[in-house]
Amino acid sequence: MDYREAGVDIGAADAAKNRIKALARGTFDARVLTEIGSFGGMFRPDLSSYRDPVLVASTDGVGTKIKVAIAAGVHDTVGYDLVAHCVNDILVQGALPLFFLDYVALGRMDPLRVEQIVRGFARACAEFSCPLIGGETAEMPGTYAEDDYDVAGFIVGVVEKDRALPRGVKEGDLLLGLPSEGLHTNGYSLARKVLFDTLGYRVDTELPELGSSVGRALLAAHRSYLSALEPLLQRDKLRALVHVTGGGFPGNIPRVLPKGLGARVRRSAWPVPPLFRLIQRGGGVGEEEMYRTFNMGIGMIAVVSPSDLHEVEHSLERRGETSFVIGSVIGGDGVAYED
Amino acid sequence: MDYREAGVDIGAADAAKNRIKALARGTFDARVLTEIGSFGGMFRPDLSSYRDPVLVASTDGVGTKIKVAIAAGVHDTVGYDLVAHCVNDILVQGALPLFFLDYVALGRMDPLRVEQIVRGFARACAEFSCPLIGGETAEMPGTYAEDDYDVAGFIVGVVEKDRALPRGVKEGDLLLGLPSEGLHTNGYSLARKVLFDTLGYRVDTELPELGSSVGRALLAAHRSYLSALEPLLQRDKLRALVHVTGGGFPGNIPRVLPKGLGARVRRSAWPVPPLFRLIQRGGGVGEEEMYRTFNMGIGMIAVVSPSDLHEVEHSLERRGETSFVIGSVIGGDGVAYED
Repeated sequence: MDYREAGVDIGAADAAKNRIKALARGTFDARVLTEIGSFGGMFRPDLSSYRDPVLVASTDGVGTKIKVAIAAGVHDTVGYDLVAHCVNDILVQGALPLFFLDYVALGRMDPLRVEQIVRGFARACAEFSCPLIGGETAEMPGTYAEDDYDVAGFIVGVVEKDRALPRGVKEGDLLLGLPSEGLHTNGYSLARKVLFDTLGYRVDTELPELGSSVGRALLAAHRSYLSALEPLLQRDKLRALVHVTGGGFPGNIPRVLPKGLGARVRRSAWPVPPLFRLIQRGGGVGEEEMYRTFNMGIGMIAVVSPSDLHEVEHSLERRGETSFVIGSVIGGDGVAYED
Repeated sequence: MDYREAGVDIGAADAAKNRIKALARGTFDARVLTEIGSFGGMFRPDLSSYRDPVLVASTDGVGTKIKVAIAAGVHDTVGYDLVAHCVNDILVQGALPLFFLDYVALGRMDPLRVEQIVRGFARACAEFSCPLIGGETAEMPGTYAEDDYDVAGFIVGVVEKDRALPRGVKEGDLLLGLPSEGLHTNGYSLARKVLFDTLGYRVDTELPELGSSVGRALLAAHRSYLSALEPLLQRDKLRALVHVTGGGFPGNIPRVLPKGLGARVRRSAWPVPPLFRLIQRGGGVGEEEMYRTFNMGIGMIAVVSPSDLHEVEHSLERRGETSFVIGSVIGGDGVAYED
């Protein structure tokens, strides 16, 4: 018997590794000192402009969005989603990305599949100047079905210690919502159940109200807000940022508010995209449940001082970014809604 | 319908989060600026003793060792394995650990199960002074069977740029092998196939030749070589380190050798533990295949100058570490064996 008969193909792994190497190299800059394939990826950060640099690290997956990717046979978008998600997560602490690593586990090592997955990572890493300096690709027959896989991403960024967010959030501050593109990476188990099981759609079902197929709408990219928000970070115009991910509004807004403060959100302040209403209607999902599961069209919330609102809105506009004043910080705790 | 009916239990996720928080806190020191639960974990490294610090990052999983853990109902060891694996991977570049993050994905969010898994991470993180500053716990029904899960780990460490390994490996250098404890985290698909499918053992089958049950032998901890090797790193007595992981001897030794150099390994130089021979015999696995799949009893190889051998051996001995001169660096490439 050999390793291959046991379901692990080292030859295929080597082929996959070579494809990954080439893709990762496209994300490199002078700070990266090693090729992919070293035991550890080496990154020489330029911290000369920081007085007291703090590393900010985050890890995430894309949840069962991966199931939609598999059903649609589209494997080069979830990697992008994951990097964008991670970039947003550290942005929320005020940090800018340094580097990224990926973990891909598959039921069967398919070099072409791996290449497609990693192509998504590489595209995002290049866009965000966040080199892909390492990763692990594991063939795990038995844990994953033959056609199945999972991905996890890991990012490290840096922020000047006394400029980290949240910083100085006060009662009366405004919540400025920035639009998402679809579900990003949250709520897919519920969305899939409603759309595929209850409503009987398939990934290739075209829906006029979505202007696309169901699969395409569900695979819309997780947006990164780095380029929209970086200038405002540099100018100290943000008091906090909320990445609207798992747990939705009530699960995320309170994470950046000091004790004794909550949020009031005016739900009529922005247009909830049709995909969310379709899921809500199709599954008979309660309004509260929708807001604690999905981003409802708002992927990132900036908490700003009322006196900075005008300047912040203008800066966003110049970057081509839409924004909505969706609420404010109030005394209390949690999230209260008004319509 | 709600998120719970779709297979995702946010209440259970919150319960798991609280257990993780408490465990992670036990690994913290003054460098950690955030609690678990922030969007990003903040870590303030003390780089004052470095002239030119380079960050070294690595990610890994434990492969299908996780299947053995599940079969044995033992969930607090694979986390330890993973941290030790990651610590070794960056040690190979000469780096000492800064911090760790984990990714855990399960078919069903079972807070008790998650606590056991994270307990393993926390134990290792505390042992290696490598705080667990963040992580993601994802419930993914459909990707993982109800009782199934996967874990991935991410580590970041630091090394002085001009002291990074490998450094100055020469023909004639000696390979000093340090013993593993069992399979560490590699070759489990083959080992499981032979032991469970071919030989019909179960995790609780007691085997006198192993002095333990099959499950216990397979779950033996992945050792970290940090404490044994750190003093030698500090004194510049190591030219390279090889972590014997996936790909075994031929897959790993060449990774740290300069072009034009290979290795000769004398296979009689150390005692191959009974577990490896049991797998080899039981599966009729060829000798070459064994050495490119398993660590064969050597978990880490130090490449040292012949003139430093004595001092290195003594230093290891003082740390209670056994070592074997298992071969040398020769002209050529790849790994050649002699018996």
